[in-house]
Amino acid sequence: MNRFSLNRFSLNHATTKFWDQTEAIEACARVGIGIGLWREPVADKGLAATAKQVRDAGVAVTSLCRGGFLTGGGTEALADNRRAIDEAAALGTSELVMVCGGIVDWAAGLDGARARVAEALAELAPYAKQCGVRLAIEPLHPMFASDRCVVSTLDQAIELASPFEPDVVGVVVDTYHIWWDPTVFAAIERAAGRIAAFQVADWITPLPAGVLTGRGQLGDGCVDFRRFRMAVEAAGYTGPIEVELFNDEIWARPGPQVLAETMQRYRDHVA
Amino acid sequence: MNRFSLNRFSLNHATTKFWDQTEAIEACARVGIGIGLWREPVADKGLAATAKQVRDAGVAVTSLCRGGFLTGGGTEALADNRRAIDEAAALGTSELVMVCGGIVDWAAGLDGARARVAEALAELAPYAKQCGVRLAIEPLHPMFASDRCVVSTLDQAIELASPFEPDVVGVVVDTYHIWWDPTVFAAIERAAGRIAAFQVADWITPLPAGVLTGRGQLGDGCVDFRRFRMAVEAAGYTGPIEVELFNDEIWARPGPQVLAETMQRYRDHVA
Repeated sequence: MNRFSLNRFSLNHATTKFWDQTEAIEACARVGIGIGLWREPVADKGLAATAKQVRDAGVAVTSLCRGGFLTGGGTEALADNRRAIDEAAALGTSELVMVCGGIVDWAAGLDGARARVAEALAELAPYAKQCGVRLAIEPLHPMFASDRCVVSTLDQAIELASPFEPDVVGVVVDTYHIWWDPTVFAAIERAAGRIAAFQVADWITPLPAGVLTGRGQLGDGCVDFRRFRMAVEAAGYTGPIEVELFNDEIWARPGPQVLAETMQRYRDHVA
Repeated sequence: MNRFSLNRFSLNHATTKFWDQTEAIEACARVGIGIGLWREPVADKGLAATAKQVRDAGVAVTSLCRGGFLTGGGTEALADNRRAIDEAAALGTSELVMVCGGIVDWAAGLDGARARVAEALAELAPYAKQCGVRLAIEPLHPMFASDRCVVSTLDQAIELASPFEPDVVGVVVDTYHIWWDPTVFAAIERAAGRIAAFQVADWITPLPAGVLTGRGQLGDGCVDFRRFRMAVEAAGYTGPIEVELFNDEIWARPGPQVLAETMQRYRDHVA
């Protein structure tokens, strides 16, 4: 394996969801790659202990997943997002991935939910800035629009981010969610300076019930990863490329095996 | 039931998929509503026999589902679509719903598939015009973009239709497929004069495996039907409103019961 071709590769821990976080970080240190962490396993291991481990091991935390779920209103969601910002800062990552939330208040509907996201971002941005953490708005595939994320396109994410400084509120380009969008490459161009993270997963069918865990290993589906990579590069993004696969079959396999396969697929289809 | 409020209601036969077509047409005649037919059951009953039944019963055929699947190239798909145009004309409907097809040629990818749709429409349009049938391009939800329809947004459908006369190539507004789109109401405005059909189904979660049969009965989900109805009316569309529900639970129930429930839901949520 050519080490050089992997120097932007990062393992989002969700790809190996059931691989113990401590071991996953050790493995990333061994192969010299970054890792995207999730709040729950970080909390299980302890925030300070995880921060120490990645620092001692020299492993870059490329993002923390995730803040968001802002559509219900109320102060608890804001408080939880401030905690997530603190955690990102403690882990030494500048990128907090935000999954904005679905339709909670059915009377207010889709437009109401979208308005609440904008309001909540305005509440959170000053604190994020103070902590050196960017709120990275992730558009999710429209099949999640009602129950998970009312932000469905990159254009929409850019519009939500645009009132804020680019290093305070940014956008996530995740191929799984936006590959189908006929205007996506123009949107990536418009996102220049605001791309906070670039995540990759392939689109495969049939989708499983609930549609959460049907993401494909790189190369198993129809996404043109190199085109996306070149587009984000043309927009000035040269940061980490996180592989984030939610897939029951992949989750059932041993972490080291999945990591090795994923690095190879990355070399074949992305790098 | 106020008959007046139902004068635009049409039962898409797929809502009661396992209800014998002859009986469904008889029921539509009794309550004075239209029906959207499907090619396979029409072929089972015989095209001429079906055409005679709807004519004798005075039931309007509001659309024929479906043509399309144009992304594989070759002459067979075109020949099949010409047969579908013939069938629409024989049934006395001006609207042939087109589901354009998924990614068939993986090397050509999404862009290649979209280009093939445009080419095939150009091939088919003169024949459609000659037969008095409109090719009604239906954008399908992006969760179907790889395997069923590379046309994912109303804007994209309008762009594909725009080289042709509005009464030869039009677009379908189906709430199930486009409700999530942050730009959909602007797109409906732009579609003025080209709206060939208005179909309604609600969005509910969780989605079933394969995601084909998860459409919600009107009022069970998050779609704001009245807003969509008023938007298509503002764009000049005052034609039939077809209810098209693909749903295993609904399919398991007796057709007459489903029709009665659907008419009531239509009155409560759409009319």
